[in-house]
Amino acid sequence: MSEAVFKGVEIVGTSDQSFSHAIEVAVQRARQTLHNLSWFVVKEQRGGLQQGRLEYQVTLCVYFKLDKMENPMNAGDQAGEQV
Amino acid sequence: MSEAVFKGVEIVGTSDQSFSHAIEVAVQRARQTLHNLSWFVVKEQRGGLQQGRLEYQVTLCVYFKLDKMENPMNAGDQAGEQV
Amino acid sequence: MSEAVFKGVEIVGTSDQSFSHAIEVAVQRARQTLHNLSWFVVKEQRGGLQQGRLEYQVTLCVYFKLDKMENPMNAGDQAGEQV
Amino acid sequence: MSEAVFKGVEIVGTSDQSFSHAIEVAVQRARQTLHNLSWFVVKEQRGGLQQGRLEYQVTLCVYFKLDKMENPMNAGDQAGEQV
Amino acid sequence: MSEAVFKGVEIVGTSDQSFSHAIEVAVQRARQTLHNLSWFVVKEQRGGLQQGRLEYQVTLCVYFKLDKMENPMNAGDQAGEQV
Amino acid sequence: MSEAVFKGVEIVGTSDQSFSHAIEVAVQRARQTLHNLSWFVVKEQRGGLQQGRLEYQVTLCVYFKLDKMENPMNAGDQAGEQV
Amino acid sequence: MSEAVFKGVEIVGTSDQSFSHAIEVAVQRARQTLHNLSWFVVKEQRGGLQQGRLEYQVTLCVYFKLDKMENPMNAGDQAGEQV
Amino acid sequence: MSEAVFKGVEIVGTSDQSFSHAIEVAVQRARQTLHNLSWFVVKEQRGGLQQGRLEYQVTLCVYFKLDKMENPMNAGDQAGEQV
Amino acid sequence: MSEAVFKGVEIVGTSDQSFSHAIEVAVQRARQTLHNLSWFVVKEQRGGLQQGRLEYQVTLCVYFKLDKMENPMNAGDQAGEQV
Amino acid sequence: MSEAVFKGVEIVGTSDQSFSHAIEVAVQRARQTLHNLSWFVVKEQRGGLQQGRLEYQVTLCVYFKLDKMENPMNAGDQAGEQV
Amino acid sequence: MSEAVFKGVEIVGTSDQSFSHAIEVAVQRARQTLHNLSWFVVKEQRGGLQQGRLEYQVTLCVYFKLDKMENPMNAGDQAGEQV
Amino acid sequence: MSEAVFKGVEIVGTSDQSFSHAIEVAVQRARQTLHNLSWFVVKEQRGGLQQGRLEYQVTLCVYFKLDKMENPMNAGDQAGEQV
Repeated sequence: MSEAVFKGVEIVGTSDQSFSHAIEVAVQRARQTLHNLSWFVVKEQRGGLQQGRLEYQVTLCVYFKLDKMENPMNAGDQAGEQV
Repeated sequence: MSEAVFKGVEIVGTSDQSFSHAIEVAVQRARQTLHNLSWFVVKEQRGGLQQGRLEYQVTLCVYFKLDKMENPMNAGDQAGEQV
Repeated sequence: MSEAVFKGVEIVGTSDQSFSHAIEVAVQRARQTLHNLSWFVVKEQRGGLQQGRLEYQVTLCVYFKLDKMENPMNAGDQAGEQV
Repeated sequence: MSEAVFKGVEIVGTSDQSFSHAIEVAVQRARQTLHNLSWFVVKEQRGGLQQGRLEYQVTLCVYFKLDKMENPMNAGDQAGEQV
Repeated sequence: MSEAVFKGVEIVGTSDQSFSHAIEVAVQRARQTLHNLSWFVVKEQRGGLQQGRLEYQVTLCVYFKLDKMENPMNAGDQAGEQV
Repeated sequence: MSEAVFKGVEIVGTSDQSFSHAIEVAVQRARQTLHNLSWFVVKEQRGGLQQGRLEYQVTLCVYFKLDKMENPMNAGDQAGEQV
Repeated sequence: MSEAVFKGVEIVGTSDQSFSHAIEVAVQRARQTLHNLSWFVVKEQRGGLQQGRLEYQVTLCVYFKLDKMENPMNAGDQAGEQV
Repeated sequence: MSEAVFKGVEIVGTSDQSFSHAIEVAVQRARQTLHNLSWFVVKEQRGGLQQGRLEYQVTLCVYFKLDKMENPMNAGDQAGEQV
Repeated sequence: MSEAVFKGVEIVGTSDQSFSHAIEVAVQRARQTLHNLSWFVVKEQRGGLQQGRLEYQVTLCVYFKLDKMENPMNAGDQAGEQV
Repeated sequence: MSEAVFKGVEIVGTSDQSFSHAIEVAVQRARQTLHNLSWFVVKEQRGGLQQGRLEYQVTLCVYFKLDKMENPMNAGDQAGEQV
Repeated sequence: MSEAVFKGVEIVGTSDQSFSHAIEVAVQRARQTLHNLSWFVVKEQRGGLQQGRLEYQVTLCVYFKLDKMENPMNAGDQAGEQV
Repeated sequence: MSEAVFKGVEIVGTSDQSFSHAIEVAVQRARQTLHNLSWFVVKEQRGGLQQGRLEYQVTLCVYFKLDKMENPMNAGDQAGEQV
């Protein structure tokens, strides 16, 4: 019952506006191909300063729930995320 | 004179808006029962991603100055914070 | 709605049996005086080796949800946990 | 000969029983879609405490050996894991 | 027998003399309201340099043994420290 | 414009020659299936010492730029890397 | 060609508004005397809580490219930054 | 009186059963040649996954009390542990 | 008002007497050329043991307040510290 | 006698060849303007992977001995490095 | 069978040539008195810069397999390494 | 010439007086059996608080130079320290 398994994926979002916006950019992109997103952790906050502008870069680890595999032999047919 | 003693308390603030707002939420709650708040340190920034929304969670350590105890025997009667 | 605030408390559980049992001992003791326990994080695993025995010691940070204070003036009358 | 390359994947296993069981749950799930598993590292041990129960959560990094690609042009035809 | 539970509290001691004195100041203050103090860990050593003086600041985590609760219902009547 | 998103992948390269060669081995392998590689970070340097030889092992995190998805519904048809 | 050398300088920006503003304040001040700013890394986020206000303090490491020295003997005559 | 000196030794225990058993294996081996064992700290938990099995590996630092040396010249004749 | 900017400088003080004295030696030297010193953080404590003596070495990060630049064009004429 | 004071400066060297070369590049540049260089510490090893090449980047902290100031009033006249 | 125990020893190798050579120097020296060397981990990379030269210093932790003791009473007669 | 090898040993010194004294106690004990001591690093500062007293405990890593082995076959006959 409680034996859920999650996978973590490291992504870096960038934005000209703020660290908050960089997180939203990264999460929005992750939602396009990953389902069952559950939580994220901020790993690092850096930024670019070239040519007078300020670019915010946030490294996140995003976690999502893996589907239970009924029949591992047919892994390729499953719609959910795999390890 | 300079022999002040401070206590640190770990709190986690949450917000649907931003990490900044989550910090304000946590500090505002701490002010309701703690006096002489002095400074805070951000320990971790995470968040929830369930059901399509983005919840910001900030773990802070909030520090406040402890009152000098004139008479330790009457600790229970003192109005200020205790260790 | 989402503006919950949690407090973290550091406790160390000990056991002659295992680290798992030391965690249970610590959590069971925390439940006696803290309500709304939410999650914990293992901070350190050490142990004692004196006189031929093996004592397991686990340092945890246990987090619980703080009650919303309707009226900060009456903090002392509230049943829930305070900061 | 010795020029093997491995890939690391972060997974979180959960269990109502123990941290050891949570590791087994995570590894068992990884074996369903990953081959050539080699080693793992425990990154974090946390848990849930809601509603009176104790859920163990272990974050692992699981490493597996990548297949050598004879012909990178045909990557899609290869049976083994890819980066 | 061995199932003791300890609680850790973070305090910051300050002194014009030395880090050693700042630790003594912090421990002495903790002894006024906490019983069964067992051990401490130095977490950080910093200091103030304003107006030509040197103030030593030490962040400690101080641990003390929690009393066993015979009857959790009467927690408020117990003399010892609570979680 | 500036809202690029990158993904980080952890790989371990091994070599009988040197840590530098182990990095080259890992990067060369990553280039076979990943496009738009941008930067890497060295996470750990270890090695094997069995049977009198010295094997260098480097754990890297390799980052590459994710393609913008015009139409998330057709994710499977896209040539670039996905989260 | 690729043998550039950068220098990192640690600065702390403060703001009454937000951590983002504190970063802007720090970067703006650095631009007044440093040229060729390239990137920054957030090292710590803390803040002041005295007298009921909330002051945001961000410790950054700011990196800028050092000029190539054609003639080290004349270091004092060079316009660019020095180590 | 209180001027005891301890030495720490790093050992790695392995087991097919559990991390707890791996710790027992390591401590049992240490007891064969070291006396006055006092405490241990868990440094890392990893494991092997080759050939379908799960091997638990725990890195410990084990500490033991050093004997007082009455006559350093005769170090070789002393029965207790040396630095 | 609150938009102050500070700079951190890493220095290592040494002493034959104690770590406390090594800190004083480092701070005293920093005061000779830096103004508006505000605070310091101890980063590392090491020491030399050669030829039978004990030398204490403390690595500090010392922070001082940067002057506001009214006219960045005349940076060279300003008396205060620069980034 | 033993009361020397050192200053640490963070620099990043880059090279197309190897991390070792990147260190040499950084140290060589530091020698052009800093005297009495004493030791360095490797803080981070990263690299660029754009356009099919591999650029090595090493972040070092380089330490050099500060001159004793006989007369702090004349700091500007001294040939050696200042804080 | 799988209950092997390893011991870790910290050594620092130095070289005028490179970090790689410093590792080889350290491992070669360890092989002279330790048997069953299994693996190593790089802990720190530093170096000396005095008198215009560059000395590479690598701190390693080297691990070797401990012999099984059939008869602990005769520990002194065993040929293999002891804890 | 420069190919020296050092070994690091972890020791814990205790004292009723101060951390400085605990370091001296530990170093003095190490000198009784180890030769060519070179440097030490402070790893942790903790202490005991039982029965109203304050015991200082410092964990050090002490490094000493290993002798060059001319003839590894006669390791047992050498007077200097071995790995």
